[in-house]
Amino acid sequence: MKAVILSIGQELVAGQTVDTNSAYLSRLLASRGIETLEHRTVGDDRELIAGAIADSIKLVPLVIVTGGLGPTEDDLTRFALGDVMEADLVCDELALEQIKGIFVRLDRRMTESNRVQAMIPRGARALPNRLGTAPGIHARVGGADIYIMPGVPSEMKEMFAICVEPHLPSGEGVLVHRILHTFGAGESDIGARIADLMSRDSNPLVGTTVAEGMVSIRVIAKSATMDGAEAIWRDVSSEIRRRLGPLVVGQDDETMSSVVGRLLRQRGETLASAESCTGGMMGQMVTAVPGSSEYYLGGIVSYSNDAKMRMLNVPADVLAQHGAVSEEVARLMACNCREALGSTWALSITGIAGPGGGTEQKPVGLVYAALAGPDGTSVERFVMPGERDIVRLRSALGALNALRLRLIGA
Amino acid sequence: MKAVILSIGQELVAGQTVDTNSAYLSRLLASRGIETLEHRTVGDDRELIAGAIADSIKLVPLVIVTGGLGPTEDDLTRFALGDVMEADLVCDELALEQIKGIFVRLDRRMTESNRVQAMIPRGARALPNRLGTAPGIHARVGGADIYIMPGVPSEMKEMFAICVEPHLPSGEGVLVHRILHTFGAGESDIGARIADLMSRDSNPLVGTTVAEGMVSIRVIAKSATMDGAEAIWRDVSSEIRRRLGPLVVGQDDETMSSVVGRLLRQRGETLASAESCTGGMMGQMVTAVPGSSEYYLGGIVSYSNDAKMRMLNVPADVLAQHGAVSEEVARLMACNCREALGSTWALSITGIAGPGGGTEQKPVGLVYAALAGPDGTSVERFVMPGERDIVRLRSALGALNALRLRLIGA
Repeated sequence: MKAVILSIGQELVAGQTVDTNSAYLSRLLASRGIETLEHRTVGDDRELIAGAIADSIKLVPLVIVTGGLGPTEDDLTRFALGDVMEADLVCDELALEQIKGIFVRLDRRMTESNRVQAMIPRGARALPNRLGTAPGIHARVGGADIYIMPGVPSEMKEMFAICVEPHLPSGEGVLVHRILHTFGAGESDIGARIADLMSRDSNPLVGTTVAEGMVSIRVIAKSATMDGAEAIWRDVSSEIRRRLGPLVVGQDDETMSSVVGRLLRQRGETLASAESCTGGMMGQMVTAVPGSSEYYLGGIVSYSNDAKMRMLNVPADVLAQHGAVSEEVARLMACNCREALGSTWALSITGIAGPGGGTEQKPVGLVYAALAGPDGTSVERFVMPGERDIVRLRSALGALNALRLRLIGA
Repeated sequence: MKAVILSIGQELVAGQTVDTNSAYLSRLLASRGIETLEHRTVGDDRELIAGAIADSIKLVPLVIVTGGLGPTEDDLTRFALGDVMEADLVCDELALEQIKGIFVRLDRRMTESNRVQAMIPRGARALPNRLGTAPGIHARVGGADIYIMPGVPSEMKEMFAICVEPHLPSGEGVLVHRILHTFGAGESDIGARIADLMSRDSNPLVGTTVAEGMVSIRVIAKSATMDGAEAIWRDVSSEIRRRLGPLVVGQDDETMSSVVGRLLRQRGETLASAESCTGGMMGQMVTAVPGSSEYYLGGIVSYSNDAKMRMLNVPADVLAQHGAVSEEVARLMACNCREALGSTWALSITGIAGPGGGTEQKPVGLVYAALAGPDGTSVERFVMPGERDIVRLRSALGALNALRLRLIGA
């Protein structure tokens, strides 16, 4: 079973947006044993879109399309599909009701242009969209299945899971894609420790990537059956975990925050945060996890010295003597935050994210992170490479990692 | 002048790597007045690569290819080009010397497999690669120029700048790409207001996209000269700004936070934040802007009711009577935060981000945002569609937008 994935959008073909949908869809198709032959991206041009769809259905029995389903003049995918099917567009009443329902729910007025989103080629069927106003479309043309979904990644992912994936045929073999996320060592260091597992034509195929401040190890295990592929994955992942120990944070959808959250929940403990240079990023990361209110009490963003004094009782003379970016201030921030919020643990971060504010003695990238807990307070000093965004991201991850290591007793 | 960009690689079509080269190349081509019609990605399959090259040279006079030039079994682009040219491969002695030189420089032994990298179709020419062992290839086939470069982004970028860009036709004109970012109206509403500017074959070309919680209006202005293109852009952008008024937040690299920061800095005023469901996201967004310490004092993440009482003096009976997600609590959070931090302005957010926690009366997506300032406190109520991440993002943007509107007197 083979597939082609088409992406529609002028912003994609002009290079203003990088297409991530196609890679996402390829991975999911592969996990069902379906091989993607081609990704193809065209702009908002009815003839080009129709041409790409027509080419694809000649090549493969499964064509997945994203984008061009919006309500404006430049959203032309539905018309192009109509051209390929040689069918006129008709209003799908159920889809129209769903669109109207979304506007009622949002308490907003539906514009006339949204009506076009309920128009689909005669002979095709609409796919419901719970998250937005653009229904998807499924059609069977010339022996091929065509699924068209919105380009907005969250809407596409939900629609794929609900309306497309359950109807896909199962292929001959099974590929299992899994990822182990690590923190605390560089990509070349991780690579060196598992070099013998990374040869190109082996099964499983093992590779590394850096993403979101962490080094991830990608594994693709191939077998005739799901059980076989899972067994291969289990063997290699336990070998990797044996070699890397506590550097391995989690797997697949797990994040630093979700792992820390799980550990806190298991122990019935709570967390608070005191942030300076990260400005709320650590709190945001912790609360990105649904249900985090069970263990995260809250935090203080003491961005200015005044806020450090007012909100966290850091004495003015400590700030004057050691500076805001210092072990002493990090320690006081964590201790006093823990006391103020009454949490089991408190994490603090103070540092110089750049691009300005660095000195010879305190360069850009210098960060102190403190962890206050029932058995005292520890402070770590980091010097992070990279730009402002990366320094902030690694600081937040580094602080959370300190708590993770304490909670697993590493 | 139009172009097609091809990417070759099994890791791309399998979704293990996201192709960023094509977007990069499209942007550079556009700046030279060359429009990209299509991006196309195929795996390591000689026939598919040859087919994609053959299709492209029929369509456009410029074909840019990246990837598949490595030394291993699965690097097949050179052979596919030979198939299209109906030419056998010959060793380019100059390219071979360059490859040997790289191994000497790295003090590594050259493997026999690297020799193949000096093989190019008869009638094509090699393009030097200063950074790696894969020379590029240029060929002229059927009236079209084909440039093939390595897939490694750093090698591709250097080779493009040195070997490709100087030889590109100067196009008949210049394309200027600009983006206006809006907030506060849906894509269909924005589209309806500028529908007459969005017709397909006009100059400038105007389109809309939703990204990062905002609706962006993309403009591509085309002219023989940069001055001409800039003049077209100025005309259309002032027309859009006239129609949309304060819905337009900023342009190009500007963000909601950077615009709010600029306004605060101009007025010498300060900001503090009190966040519940966003958990620090608003503070993180504000402090993502370098130099934000000039106007952002800090904030309180009052995620739990206990934190709302302890840190923001929200009375227990107000929480009990109205609930944490209420106009009253939002108002108290903003007022008391402003007082606690001594800022000119304070923004608060309290809401239900989901997926759990919703009720009939207070559904997931219900958010209150308050703005406290020198002349009192106002509260806005939103019902946001979408998942947890999107609800949080739109909440933070919505709160910052309330401040922006107040600061510009809208």
